[in-house]
Amino acid sequence: MKTNFAIVLLSGGMDSCVCTAVANQEYRLALLHVNYGQRTEGRELRAFNEIADFYHAEKRLVVSLEHLQVIGGSSLTDRSMPIPEAVEGRMQPVPAAAGSIPSTYVPFRNAHLLAIATSWAEVIGASKIFIGAVEEDSSGYPDCREIFYQAFNKVIEMGTRPETRVEIITPLIHMKKSAIVRRGVEVGAPMHLTWSCYQSSEKACGRCESCALRLKGFNEAGVKDPIPYQNA
Amino acid sequence: MKTNFAIVLLSGGMDSCVCTAVANQEYRLALLHVNYGQRTEGRELRAFNEIADFYHAEKRLVVSLEHLQVIGGSSLTDRSMPIPEAVEGRMQPVPAAAGSIPSTYVPFRNAHLLAIATSWAEVIGASKIFIGAVEEDSSGYPDCREIFYQAFNKVIEMGTRPETRVEIITPLIHMKKSAIVRRGVEVGAPMHLTWSCYQSSEKACGRCESCALRLKGFNEAGVKDPIPYQNA
Repeated sequence: MKTNFAIVLLSGGMDSCVCTAVANQEYRLALLHVNYGQRTEGRELRAFNEIADFYHAEKRLVVSLEHLQVIGGSSLTDRSMPIPEAVEGRMQPVPAAAGSIPSTYVPFRNAHLLAIATSWAEVIGASKIFIGAVEEDSSGYPDCREIFYQAFNKVIEMGTRPETRVEIITPLIHMKKSAIVRRGVEVGAPMHLTWSCYQSSEKACGRCESCALRLKGFNEAGVKDPIPYQNA
Repeated sequence: MKTNFAIVLLSGGMDSCVCTAVANQEYRLALLHVNYGQRTEGRELRAFNEIADFYHAEKRLVVSLEHLQVIGGSSLTDRSMPIPEAVEGRMQPVPAAAGSIPSTYVPFRNAHLLAIATSWAEVIGASKIFIGAVEEDSSGYPDCREIFYQAFNKVIEMGTRPETRVEIITPLIHMKKSAIVRRGVEVGAPMHLTWSCYQSSEKACGRCESCALRLKGFNEAGVKDPIPYQNA
């Protein structure tokens, strides 16, 4: 019998879907989706809703932020900047120069997501916030690092009511993409319902940074990716 | 000659107005206002714009968050909850029971404000974020404490690009309200343009927690509050 709620940040991508499956093993689900002006916003929302239906989530909250697009600074929200593609013939995304962050980085985005999750957690009495961030085998965003989540846990402790106990959980943080695929299969995550492509909402492009990372994970895990791709 | 930008969180209240005046001494101003469904939203926005005009602010950004109202849990955004009033005959707000937080606390609100300020700072290259939070002589909100801002500075360091340097500055954090009034007079802050009342948008009610704290500050400083009150 599950008694406590966990909030899961569910973009609708593979990692957040596996994260939802993991949270579902121990917690009642309160699923949170945030639109922030990213190109494939509508397609991601559909994935969110289908995954939430799959799990019969007790609570769901969809939030739209206009200001991340207004503030800009990212190719994910600014249609005038190109989305980087993976280098031809390699399944890895364009390697970032040492210390540089890809143009798809949305400045400090995950802090916005966690702030929303924390406010919601405080009101509904959820004890955990799950986020499917991946540190090493990923795009190198600074707000996907474990030290960022550790620091944010301190902010939650200091910035909420004394009786509030909310903790961020990052079950995938040090996993390779292939291990995430295998974990997803193990826990029965509905990966056919997910969407990862940054570029397209019909069939996945297979070439953007996010598609490339996902396909590499499936390839290395020896599992067939169940979603449709343009060149498949 | 001022070269660096500071973002100032300017609600339109007295504290944030004094904070703007302080920031203006050293920095170019990028003023940020957030509507979050609070009752006197329109009146606060007018105060923001009039203060921004007063300072000829180079940049201004107004953000509307719907989700804090949807998430609820505060008498400031939930019209069905009463706004607490100061106890009759005393200028102090209703004292919170030990360890309890007043109903006007909007769960984790300041984390949302700081996340927006940080994203904007990272994009425009601002080096400071000023916020007029007051710890002791205030309503006792957990996200108005210095340790919260110290923890948030760590989150900014961990969650932004390696080359980004943004620091939260809280020039009023340990000041009494009366000292803030005196500081405002010293630096020429346009206090006649500010709005603090939680309850009313015409004349300030003079009775809510926020009016009571403000009036107490002016009284103790021996300065006449220049804004109109209902019973004055």
